[in-house]
Amino acid sequence: MTGPPDRAVPFDDRGLTLGDGLFETLLAVDGRLRDADAHLARLAAGCTTLGLPALDRAAALRLMQDAAAGSVGRMAVRLTLTAGSGGRGLGRPAAPAPRMFATTAPAPAPAAPVRLSTSTVRRNEGSPASRLKTLAYLDNVLAWREAQAADADEALMLNGAGAVACASAANIFWLADGRLRTPALACGVLAGVTRAAVIAEAARRGILTEEVSAGPETLAMADAVFLTNSLTGIRAAVSLDGRPLGTAPLTGVLASAVAG
Amino acid sequence: MTGPPDRAVPFDDRGLTLGDGLFETLLAVDGRLRDADAHLARLAAGCTTLGLPALDRAAALRLMQDAAAGSVGRMAVRLTLTAGSGGRGLGRPAAPAPRMFATTAPAPAPAAPVRLSTSTVRRNEGSPASRLKTLAYLDNVLAWREAQAADADEALMLNGAGAVACASAANIFWLADGRLRTPALACGVLAGVTRAAVIAEAARRGILTEEVSAGPETLAMADAVFLTNSLTGIRAAVSLDGRPLGTAPLTGVLASAVAG
Repeated sequence: MTGPPDRAVPFDDRGLTLGDGLFETLLAVDGRLRDADAHLARLAAGCTTLGLPALDRAAALRLMQDAAAGSVGRMAVRLTLTAGSGGRGLGRPAAPAPRMFATTAPAPAPAAPVRLSTSTVRRNEGSPASRLKTLAYLDNVLAWREAQAADADEALMLNGAGAVACASAANIFWLADGRLRTPALACGVLAGVTRAAVIAEAARRGILTEEVSAGPETLAMADAVFLTNSLTGIRAAVSLDGRPLGTAPLTGVLASAVAG
Repeated sequence: MTGPPDRAVPFDDRGLTLGDGLFETLLAVDGRLRDADAHLARLAAGCTTLGLPALDRAAALRLMQDAAAGSVGRMAVRLTLTAGSGGRGLGRPAAPAPRMFATTAPAPAPAAPVRLSTSTVRRNEGSPASRLKTLAYLDNVLAWREAQAADADEALMLNGAGAVACASAANIFWLADGRLRTPALACGVLAGVTRAAVIAEAARRGILTEEVSAGPETLAMADAVFLTNSLTGIRAAVSLDGRPLGTAPLTGVLASAVAG
């Protein structure tokens, strides 16, 4: 076997073989990273949850900065951290040596309204992985494919109990009764950086966000539904399974939460 | 970026970045593959479920044969199939080009009795991935780590509804009331090759296997509990969370199902 080459990981990497690892995607604008601290904090917490060695934040930041350096306009930066090579079967080696790399891609269009379709793939609220951005992301891939097949832009994922959880690559919020609501993390929901920013900005303006467990019928009755994601910011959800959703304007309070 | 090098996959491989792919592990004895047809059939079915191009069975078989060639004694052979490179975000490219490779490792000891501990990580019966051997295997890694921490050998995984599903790397069966029982695939269970062999061999000998949804209390009352896996065959489960399980002998009917 040749050594681990440039821009590649060896066959025995546990991120590749088992999904044993984490990632972050964040926006760079003209080469400057957005919300890098929040993304690194989440990644560090994920390493703890997965029992991986403590994150080398400085190295992670440098990888992302180097990847973004010199880019013009909006760019998606992805940092991937795997549990490294080796171990036997499911077990990690005694001293795991995580592997990190950063890649870039064109950023998706921000703020475009989305049509949702309900996925048959359920979110697993019974796994800690559902609250992390892990390399075991296949359920999200499958949900996204279903949405595409249904001529929608994004998938609405329910959890095993039938409660609204998230989209395939976004958190979800809705406005109802003058309040802001979003699924609780216990529903099997990623602790999104933009999700936290929206909650924090709303709180600064005196708007409480209720973190709830609610069925999908709630969305049909809401004044507005929207998705949050670090790359695309806030996007209005305009329909669910072909039926229009509420069209109350997403006020400045929300847009300002992700203005950066 | 350099091209995809030997014994490595590039950073943009979807198996690495998203767990978008499948694997098989099977036993080779003195270089000869066991149950290769059954493993290839399962892999081909998994490609269909995931919407990947049809499996090139001849190429897959050749990779495994080449990997096993010349080995002496028992060897674990793993075939990994990823969705290949590219795409944007969660979406695959228009024409995915799957990537396959085979690796080998020392086979684990067969037939050793195992102590089980109940994992807090639930099996997601609401995802088709739970019935496949996918690269998104992190839940199993986490369950296995819990078992190790509890001084057990394997994890008992329940599904979201609280029913017995499987171990972290094995199917589970039990004997009760003179019958053989195992969780139904709908419980979120891999369609194990050894699982199918046990069911088929039992049927040939007039023993019906009931595929059920049952809570963990069922195991405590069973006459015997055992795990099946292609590498380790049939292993008796001797305890669950420190309490002994039934010790009825696993009769020849079972052992012969995996004698190969």
